[in-house]
Amino acid sequence: MSKRMTFAATEQRELAPGAPVRLDRVRAPQYGRYLEAFVPGQVFAHPRGFTFQPAAMLEFARTFMQNNPLYLNLEFAKAHGFPASPASPQMVFNVVLSLGVQNDSEKAIANLGYYGARFLRPVLPGDTLRAMTRVLERHDRGGGKPGIVRVQTLGLNQRDEVVLQYERKIMVAPSPEPRAAAASAEEHVPAFPWSDEPTVDLGDLRFGAADPSLTGSNTYFEDFEPGDIVVHANGRTITDEHVALTYKVGNTHPLHFDRLYSQSLSGAMSGEPIVYGGLVFAWLEGLASRDVSENAVWELGFTEGYHTQPAVAGDTISAVSRVLASEAWPGGSGDEIGVATFQLVGVKGISAKAAVHEYGADLFIKENDKKERGKEKIPAKIFEIERRLLLKRRPRRG
Amino acid sequence: MSKRMTFAATEQRELAPGAPVRLDRVRAPQYGRYLEAFVPGQVFAHPRGFTFQPAAMLEFARTFMQNNPLYLNLEFAKAHGFPASPASPQMVFNVVLSLGVQNDSEKAIANLGYYGARFLRPVLPGDTLRAMTRVLERHDRGGGKPGIVRVQTLGLNQRDEVVLQYERKIMVAPSPEPRAAAASAEEHVPAFPWSDEPTVDLGDLRFGAADPSLTGSNTYFEDFEPGDIVVHANGRTITDEHVALTYKVGNTHPLHFDRLYSQSLSGAMSGEPIVYGGLVFAWLEGLASRDVSENAVWELGFTEGYHTQPAVAGDTISAVSRVLASEAWPGGSGDEIGVATFQLVGVKGISAKAAVHEYGADLFIKENDKKERGKEKIPAKIFEIERRLLLKRRPRRG
Amino acid sequence: MSKRMTFAATEQRELAPGAPVRLDRVRAPQYGRYLEAFVPGQVFAHPRGFTFQPAAMLEFARTFMQNNPLYLNLEFAKAHGFPASPASPQMVFNVVLSLGVQNDSEKAIANLGYYGARFLRPVLPGDTLRAMTRVLERHDRGGGKPGIVRVQTLGLNQRDEVVLQYERKIMVAPSPEPRAAAASAEEHVPAFPWSDEPTVDLGDLRFGAADPSLTGSNTYFEDFEPGDIVVHANGRTITDEHVALTYKVGNTHPLHFDRLYSQSLSGAMSGEPIVYGGLVFAWLEGLASRDVSENAVWELGFTEGYHTQPAVAGDTISAVSRVLASEAWPGGSGDEIGVATFQLVGVKGISAKAAVHEYGADLFIKENDKKERGKEKIPAKIFEIERRLLLKRRPRRG
Repeated sequence: MSKRMTFAATEQRELAPGAPVRLDRVRAPQYGRYLEAFVPGQVFAHPRGFTFQPAAMLEFARTFMQNNPLYLNLEFAKAHGFPASPASPQMVFNVVLSLGVQNDSEKAIANLGYYGARFLRPVLPGDTLRAMTRVLERHDRGGGKPGIVRVQTLGLNQRDEVVLQYERKIMVAPSPEPRAAAASAEEHVPAFPWSDEPTVDLGDLRFGAADPSLTGSNTYFEDFEPGDIVVHANGRTITDEHVALTYKVGNTHPLHFDRLYSQSLSGAMSGEPIVYGGLVFAWLEGLASRDVSENAVWELGFTEGYHTQPAVAGDTISAVSRVLASEAWPGGSGDEIGVATFQLVGVKGISAKAAVHEYGADLFIKENDKKERGKEKIPAKIFEIERRLLLKRRPRRG
Repeated sequence: MSKRMTFAATEQRELAPGAPVRLDRVRAPQYGRYLEAFVPGQVFAHPRGFTFQPAAMLEFARTFMQNNPLYLNLEFAKAHGFPASPASPQMVFNVVLSLGVQNDSEKAIANLGYYGARFLRPVLPGDTLRAMTRVLERHDRGGGKPGIVRVQTLGLNQRDEVVLQYERKIMVAPSPEPRAAAASAEEHVPAFPWSDEPTVDLGDLRFGAADPSLTGSNTYFEDFEPGDIVVHANGRTITDEHVALTYKVGNTHPLHFDRLYSQSLSGAMSGEPIVYGGLVFAWLEGLASRDVSENAVWELGFTEGYHTQPAVAGDTISAVSRVLASEAWPGGSGDEIGVATFQLVGVKGISAKAAVHEYGADLFIKENDKKERGKEKIPAKIFEIERRLLLKRRPRRG
Repeated sequence: MSKRMTFAATEQRELAPGAPVRLDRVRAPQYGRYLEAFVPGQVFAHPRGFTFQPAAMLEFARTFMQNNPLYLNLEFAKAHGFPASPASPQMVFNVVLSLGVQNDSEKAIANLGYYGARFLRPVLPGDTLRAMTRVLERHDRGGGKPGIVRVQTLGLNQRDEVVLQYERKIMVAPSPEPRAAAASAEEHVPAFPWSDEPTVDLGDLRFGAADPSLTGSNTYFEDFEPGDIVVHANGRTITDEHVALTYKVGNTHPLHFDRLYSQSLSGAMSGEPIVYGGLVFAWLEGLASRDVSENAVWELGFTEGYHTQPAVAGDTISAVSRVLASEAWPGGSGDEIGVATFQLVGVKGISAKAAVHEYGADLFIKENDKKERGKEKIPAKIFEIERRLLLKRRPRRG
């Protein structure tokens, strides 16, 4: 029932001098969770939500150097059958992950990896997403050491359709006050519509109607063979902008915007605010977009991805892609589209060309696999991920 | 009567070499007013106006770390009965104040305080605001010393409804050329619809329909008792971003974006561009929002507020709130909402927790009252204000 | 024909360890063209396109300190007969030029000048622009020296109407591998709807209906006489923001956002990323707007313009205008509007007032003409252009 909210604005008088100061009632609300507070089976409904305005969607695409016109050009999107330019899956990933930070990782030490990310539906202008996370497992190592938590996260739109799902591994410290931190049994666990065999629904699409001069002629499905290495020409110098961008995508972790917090830490994260990893990924993906995803119609998902070094303002980052696989489209006749899987590798402080020259094939060995393969880690490498793209085949000349 | 504007684009020829250079006709238009130009009773209609686009409203909320979903989540706003997410009152305050700078304070030395700010109506997507100011009084101190001007400002929407009104005290220097500066008698004083007993009109609202998981469970009306101190966990490092943000909200004072101007000054304002105070306030309010205003449905107003120290790029600011009062809603039955008054204090270069530890109750004494109470000023304190929020009461479990 | 894109998201398995690394198949796609690749008569259809969202249009206007309410205030624009606030011609210029960078100048050494820019139609919210360039001539100087290329560029909307046309001279280096760089004969040259006698179509406009208090009273057509010099009061300190703004307007040249690239150069462009000239122009125009274009209803065009020195983050820029001509409106009775031509000069590291004082009339001699006129170049000067504005005449008091 609604209420007519028309009322007299009562007088406002200075109250501070006469009001009590209760130093016995100081509270300092904390966000994020210590290790003990993660209980397998637990489901967190994340706060706030996020409405996607068309201008913000375009701005994200432009800030992160997206070159696929699908996210930049309304007419191009409509020619493909989309009612409007969808949000780039990269933006959806950034936002959904960020919405979960307050519950999942605002006290986390490190984000260890992304797994099984799948983009199931387009996010269109005006859509509002909310996010939920389920705790899968918690690995305690005891002795006050940080443990590892595995979670699943969902992004849902205002019709409760899942638009994105993924898993994440997070390194979390035990609480300084373990008893207080332990999670109480939940009275009510919300439904969590994760699917191990999810369906992608992109609506009705067309592949031949868009102006082909708006994209490059060498980035169609046929242009990629397994083993191909694509060196992306330009790098991007990250500026202080990342401080504001963190909250713009909804990420509440102070590591990215509070220098007093950063300076209070010890170890690798101490010092200047670290760039939120989602932003690093977004720039790397953008830097690669002219060469590999300009003719993509969809980002199917990320198999697994790792931030291997942090970045800070002033770093210049560059990207290299390697083609891992090339397959027919699993969903139908596939005469117009195909699936290509790429490894995307990011470096900092060195151009992509120089990195390939210097590290050769070792650049493409995952850092986590280096030890068992008797290889040295590459300190210039900041990120590596496997991603699957639905690419258009080269249009036949009419 | 409209005119069909179709015409031949005439040839454009280089004119600069042949055109006169009249060094006898150099003019340097000045904006803002010296002390003598403020005449009680005078009304300034401020230039430009400002259209609120939905994406800009969301961007403001996100840049300034707003956590109340009302300003971030369209579905949440609609569940409360708003036709769309309203602009955050903080953005409305920033914009209306900024629109007035060109007439009121582009030559001002300091903004001494805000008084009696009241938000009377929501600003919705597509609304256009304009602003007007009336001079209340001018206090000349003579001898070339700066004087003090008291003004009232209104923000009006495109239907001429007042959405915000407040008073401000400004410190203004006398003119180097007093005769030229004196205001001529105005032929025509525009109507100035200020009301000392204004009515708030929020339309028809509902309080129980929104998803309660989108906000915290400890920030309802019942959670605040007079005297409570809430230490807000995270700080925010302000970057150079403030230079661009100043004009984005419409503020034309060069102190915030012209380093040559800043370096030409003497005294406390000399050096790097000072952060526009409205932006500082907006960040502090955002930092506090997770803990005190996430469940607010309206910002009723600001009783009085002071910027006690300037901030520059590189400063990290943090916030503390104290509960000053807790009252039933004056507008009706009040079983779903109540009014809480908070003192919001901002500090820089120190975390909120450390500031409470170091300064204790003194942190909450207004800097202007320190002298008469025999207290030292706190150089780390940058801002203090009293604000009144309309908060939801904790929903009963159905 | 459209296709229903609903399909099972197949399992994603880690592929990187088993996939080939073909160091014999490394490719590094390059963008931009070396000198040999410019062939007179050739037409490039530029990639991506750019949809103008209303919030992005407003944001551009605000970021670049635009004071004409036409671009800031929806009601003001509607009172003039526009269906909504048009994009500022400055934004249209920035975007169209940027869309052409990938083909025209991503390998260019310098942008030598703009000529004959004409804004032919408003760009309204939701419009999508694409751009095309025709090569007019190529001047080879041989011996490995950079040559000069003259091109024409068009910006077209989604109805294939030309909204902007201009010429540009670019300095381009010959290819390190001339044979590979030479352009192959084009099979098909797209139509290029350039007109030497173009028509401007602004639709049906009205000039007396807008609130005159929203603009200054001294910036009407009658206020400008040839020879007048207008010193614009405020400067603008450019921050690192320019790095992100470059891609936001669609410019892909790494000189503006890749410090590794900038540091790899020798000569004047080496070091910190250079600010994209379009952004410099936009700020200078904004700084001038309160004094000369607040009452403009249209920017007719730019006769010729030059970037005479680069700017980098940290520079403070200021602007001066000189009135070059004042003419009746060529399109009709002209009792409400007139045409004023201005020279806009930008300086850095010195206020506009100090620059006029120090350089006097020399400030208005084009740097390219200095030598033949026996004058010294002015190192503080960064930009100079001639621009033609359609200005309202002062409204008669009803």
